[in-house]
Amino acid sequence: MICDNLGVAENGHLTFAGRDTVELARKYGTPLYLMDEEKIREKCRIYLTAMKESFGENALPLYASKAASFKQVYRIAKEENIGIDVVSAGEICTAVAAGFPMDRAYFHGNNKTDADIEYAIKNDVGCFVADNLEEIDAVDRISAELGTCSKILIRITPGIDPHTYDEVATGKVDSKFGSAIETGAAEEITKYALSKKNIDLYGFHCHVGSQVFDSDVYFKTSDVMLKFIAKMEKEEGFKTRELNLGGGYGVRYVESDPIIDIAENIALVGKILKEKCDELGIEVPAIRMEPGRSIVADAGLTLYTVGSVKQIPEYRNYVSIDGGMTDNPRFALYKSDYTVLLANKINAESDFKCSVVGRCCECGDIIQENVKLPSSVKRGDIIAVLTTGAYNYSMASNYNRVPRPPIVMLAKEREYIAVRRESLEDIILNDL
Amino acid sequence: MICDNLGVAENGHLTFAGRDTVELARKYGTPLYLMDEEKIREKCRIYLTAMKESFGENALPLYASKAASFKQVYRIAKEENIGIDVVSAGEICTAVAAGFPMDRAYFHGNNKTDADIEYAIKNDVGCFVADNLEEIDAVDRISAELGTCSKILIRITPGIDPHTYDEVATGKVDSKFGSAIETGAAEEITKYALSKKNIDLYGFHCHVGSQVFDSDVYFKTSDVMLKFIAKMEKEEGFKTRELNLGGGYGVRYVESDPIIDIAENIALVGKILKEKCDELGIEVPAIRMEPGRSIVADAGLTLYTVGSVKQIPEYRNYVSIDGGMTDNPRFALYKSDYTVLLANKINAESDFKCSVVGRCCECGDIIQENVKLPSSVKRGDIIAVLTTGAYNYSMASNYNRVPRPPIVMLAKEREYIAVRRESLEDIILNDL
Repeated sequence: MICDNLGVAENGHLTFAGRDTVELARKYGTPLYLMDEEKIREKCRIYLTAMKESFGENALPLYASKAASFKQVYRIAKEENIGIDVVSAGEICTAVAAGFPMDRAYFHGNNKTDADIEYAIKNDVGCFVADNLEEIDAVDRISAELGTCSKILIRITPGIDPHTYDEVATGKVDSKFGSAIETGAAEEITKYALSKKNIDLYGFHCHVGSQVFDSDVYFKTSDVMLKFIAKMEKEEGFKTRELNLGGGYGVRYVESDPIIDIAENIALVGKILKEKCDELGIEVPAIRMEPGRSIVADAGLTLYTVGSVKQIPEYRNYVSIDGGMTDNPRFALYKSDYTVLLANKINAESDFKCSVVGRCCECGDIIQENVKLPSSVKRGDIIAVLTTGAYNYSMASNYNRVPRPPIVMLAKEREYIAVRRESLEDIILNDL
Repeated sequence: MICDNLGVAENGHLTFAGRDTVELARKYGTPLYLMDEEKIREKCRIYLTAMKESFGENALPLYASKAASFKQVYRIAKEENIGIDVVSAGEICTAVAAGFPMDRAYFHGNNKTDADIEYAIKNDVGCFVADNLEEIDAVDRISAELGTCSKILIRITPGIDPHTYDEVATGKVDSKFGSAIETGAAEEITKYALSKKNIDLYGFHCHVGSQVFDSDVYFKTSDVMLKFIAKMEKEEGFKTRELNLGGGYGVRYVESDPIIDIAENIALVGKILKEKCDELGIEVPAIRMEPGRSIVADAGLTLYTVGSVKQIPEYRNYVSIDGGMTDNPRFALYKSDYTVLLANKINAESDFKCSVVGRCCECGDIIQENVKLPSSVKRGDIIAVLTTGAYNYSMASNYNRVPRPPIVMLAKEREYIAVRRESLEDIILNDL
């Protein structure tokens, strides 16, 4: 099994966080998002402990909540004493409604509107991660209007290609995010921010991409960023107080994905970072990292019910489920890998090769191709898709006017609904 | 201009359905979906008139409402006396709430759950387009339980590749939809349906793909389907009363897309179809077609506000807008073409090549690449993306917890909100 929260019960059913998934499907209906609360907490603690040990007591992981944003996940982040990264008024609203201490919230995004900025300031968001000159202007102006001075980090593109998917490769120069060191834009925006009265520049942010499986990319990033920081200190007299290194480590979607020891990798980055700071004669700034996927991905699992099995001799076999690209658009968008299991027949030999497809009226509505399931798979069986905690619920749509599934949270002593199933009434709520 | 509902006002602003788009952006805020009610009605009438003239009085176009499903569009379809194709309980619920006469509704989908089938029967849906054996069983069983007999069409894959995008090529044998003639599955499911007491088989459905720009594919499809119909009549004594030819014709997203005369093409298909029926000695069945995209696509236009313009010398220019893949995921999903204009400077020379990108924290959040805009483009300007009436609102998500835009309908004498803008409260509605 690709994660230690998975198992097999005596009746041959898949278990998740110690529960029989088939019973959960029966109890709550399908499609159904399950989340393992203990796994989320475990990951928060791994990052928090490792970062404090490796970077110093002022280090803090920020949960990149776009991976999965709903009230309860912010409550967990609060209880685990980590920060959050938010990307919209909607995420701010959710975190506020959950009682999250917003001074530990960092507001991201390449296009914050004036309304977004005002909303963030009024809701006491701790820090803007400013993307561009227009934003510096707007944050300064609106802060002045509201009689405040806003803490910001400036987003820098260090020019590193993490050799990962295009969609998540954001540290290279050709990016909609940030300002490149290479082109001089990073220096320009730093000076510009320093000239603003209602802006308190704390330091810099960078993000070279997610699904990173070793620390090499962080070594390179640290090297580039610390040199830039030293230069700004020398030339502009600007002392960086915070350095945000961006996204966390990769997660296992399939057996062939590597296993990564997060704490060990962070320790390595910490060591390199301190050495480089010493070399450059600068103090180690307060370090932030922004794990999102690696906090919640393998804490999630989705259950579906099979509706139809179609064998097309000499072509392909199709297993249709009662969800699809509406609740998990990642195969449609990126051809992402997922592990798919038949939850109610987990011990049966899996020799039936098929495409597991969704219920939408669209050919691209595929969950995964080349899946091996037991050949006895039939209408009514329960399909489990693993590692769906990140970028599934958060990317879900109502395409085909299909309601979004609920999130049922599995904790040590209890299970509870964290997000209710959408009703048909919800879907037509705004139709006049 | 790619459609006749576009124009330029004296002040240099883009007009749509006779209105100044910049004023509409100011009045309703952005992002904003606009829809041209008269254009929708015009397209409904073109299909209805041409189909009745070319196929006979019993022909009927069905609006494939997954292209854009909301109450008002069903009211328009009702008033224009056409039918609808629905794909879920959610679409049925919306149409019922709009007062649509459900005997003119056809229920599609490769995976209808028992609950869906029961919901459809209880809401008097006129016809099931049955996809597979499991569905035949379920419709028969549930119809018996509810003391009724359900009209169905059987979905057939005629084995024709429309040489269009993979995602919309659904008539070839390797498809999650329907039963192939080539493999014998079509004959098998027909016999199976005929054996069921609570099923009234009316005929067959096929769909070879959307964005079709000539009638060649319909000639081929008619040929294959009518031969199958003749065979079923001869061998099984089954007389087909209805033949559904599936999706409509293509729409123009960019200048290089061809202009198509829908009525002329339907007349050609009608001629061929009658000839083939004569040849085969069968009666012309009642014909259905299912235009979705071509009913609503160019009746739609989306307005955005520019937030940031980033020039990365020797790499690329980025123009960030306040929407993106959340309200239009079609570039992210299919690299779809769109025409993008600067609505408030429509007469300015457009020599600034850029990528128009969304506000989501994701590199793949792109509306269009290689767009030419005036080099004066700056924060606060209004961007118009054309031909967004289909598969934009219907595919929209709350990724990044971004609220979905409203739909403002532009009619001859009035403009009105058809779908309200989502609020932040709506977004956290189901969070516990």
